[in-house]
Amino acid sequence: MSNCESCPTKDKCSSKENCMIENNPLNQVKKVIGVMSGKGGVGKSTVSVLLANQLRKQGYRVGILDADITGPSIPRLMHVENQRAEASEMGIFPVNTKNGMKVISLNLLMEDENQPVIWRGPLLAGVVKQFWTDVIWGDLDYLLIDMPPGTADIALTVMQSIPINGVVMVSVPQDLVSMIVAKAVNMARKMDIDVIGVVENMSYIQCPDCKTKIQMYDDDNTEEFLKDMNLDLIGELPMCKEIIDISKNGMETISDNLSSTLDDITKKVISKI
Amino acid sequence: MSNCESCPTKDKCSSKENCMIENNPLNQVKKVIGVMSGKGGVGKSTVSVLLANQLRKQGYRVGILDADITGPSIPRLMHVENQRAEASEMGIFPVNTKNGMKVISLNLLMEDENQPVIWRGPLLAGVVKQFWTDVIWGDLDYLLIDMPPGTADIALTVMQSIPINGVVMVSVPQDLVSMIVAKAVNMARKMDIDVIGVVENMSYIQCPDCKTKIQMYDDDNTEEFLKDMNLDLIGELPMCKEIIDISKNGMETISDNLSSTLDDITKKVISKI
Repeated sequence: MSNCESCPTKDKCSSKENCMIENNPLNQVKKVIGVMSGKGGVGKSTVSVLLANQLRKQGYRVGILDADITGPSIPRLMHVENQRAEASEMGIFPVNTKNGMKVISLNLLMEDENQPVIWRGPLLAGVVKQFWTDVIWGDLDYLLIDMPPGTADIALTVMQSIPINGVVMVSVPQDLVSMIVAKAVNMARKMDIDVIGVVENMSYIQCPDCKTKIQMYDDDNTEEFLKDMNLDLIGELPMCKEIIDISKNGMETISDNLSSTLDDITKKVISKI
Repeated sequence: MSNCESCPTKDKCSSKENCMIENNPLNQVKKVIGVMSGKGGVGKSTVSVLLANQLRKQGYRVGILDADITGPSIPRLMHVENQRAEASEMGIFPVNTKNGMKVISLNLLMEDENQPVIWRGPLLAGVVKQFWTDVIWGDLDYLLIDMPPGTADIALTVMQSIPINGVVMVSVPQDLVSMIVAKAVNMARKMDIDVIGVVENMSYIQCPDCKTKIQMYDDDNTEEFLKDMNLDLIGELPMCKEIIDISKNGMETISDNLSSTLDDITKKVISKI
């Protein structure tokens, strides 16, 4: 049932009359951040995990909701792929990471992670809604939602049924990708959701041997795209081994340099919601 | 209405009684090839376009059906993004490329390519079905279907309502991605669709300056993955500027070396369906 008192977006809410959001009385989530793109494979899950870890390092209580039901990457990136989320009469208990973050993903409810979820949209949407209403998140400062590619059922349901304070858009510097990211930005705005800004991923490729910065995309019209769409650039991330390897090594191999970039990005994100 | 005579899969069909496929009497499509992955951003659209161009070069009549309704990349990769598909009483006419290929994509039916398609699954599925039944493809040797990420509505509808002779799976050498590709392989097999094999994209990154081959992913368990899933490797493609630049330059900058790799891949694909 809708409960405005515990709703993360109550301060800026303009839709109390036609609210579709049900808040779980066991949960007190202060802020909800969506990580979106429209395009697949640009690094939404990676950015979600990097942001979550950075927020955790800063002492916040953090959860990640993996809304990519048919292609979930979060359990492996958070090193909890061998754990299982447990259901009780009260609801579903998310899985805990070693450093105390909470995670829910469909893969954490499946016996075999290789098995596909061959569901039509309404079923997918129902699951994502349950990840908000029936998961016992408890008290969180930040819940990050890792969105699937596209602007269909799941994105629509997340935006209609979860009180999002803002979305971070993830893009890569290629015109073809910007066009699809523009679709996601336009969708968020149509749904009255704040777009916090853009994290440009794979801005350059860092050679693991000689550390040369390779500009793989030379049609980088990022500035023009940001201006046209009236978007802020939150930060730029390279395609480098230390980021690629977080699914193997966690955050242990992240250099001080990258860590400081991530710190800046995280601070910008939370200052804007 | 189902018409077994003009159906591309009539030779191997085992489901005549419960067939959900409607064939358009104006179309004679000899073979249908799906390009799938489960994962986003691995290069499904790129591989579709490379295969299509290669088949065209070999003299075949080729069409591409862009089934990624919410994140369509095909029009830009085929350099037809400024054209529009036209509808008549007979059906929808696909757009023609300079070298005589036929293309349909939702972006070719939209006024502004930046606008999102915020539709739920049943509507998306309906459009994809129409791309098979209501588009006037005419006579084609090969129709390539560029699938969206995921195993939900669209993948399901394509597999149920279009007679696919086989699917090419696109992957990249990272365990996290293989897990999601495994979901797509398992889906295709559950739906009785032949998996032709795997094209491994981004097998290495080729430095545009010194041409060094950078192995960005060193957890490459491709061999193990192929063995476990009983899959053939059709070929490997690098992440290199000549491929990235096809959205700008078309196939003009493709080197002889890459062209011969593409030729091998294409021959393998068509020999198996």
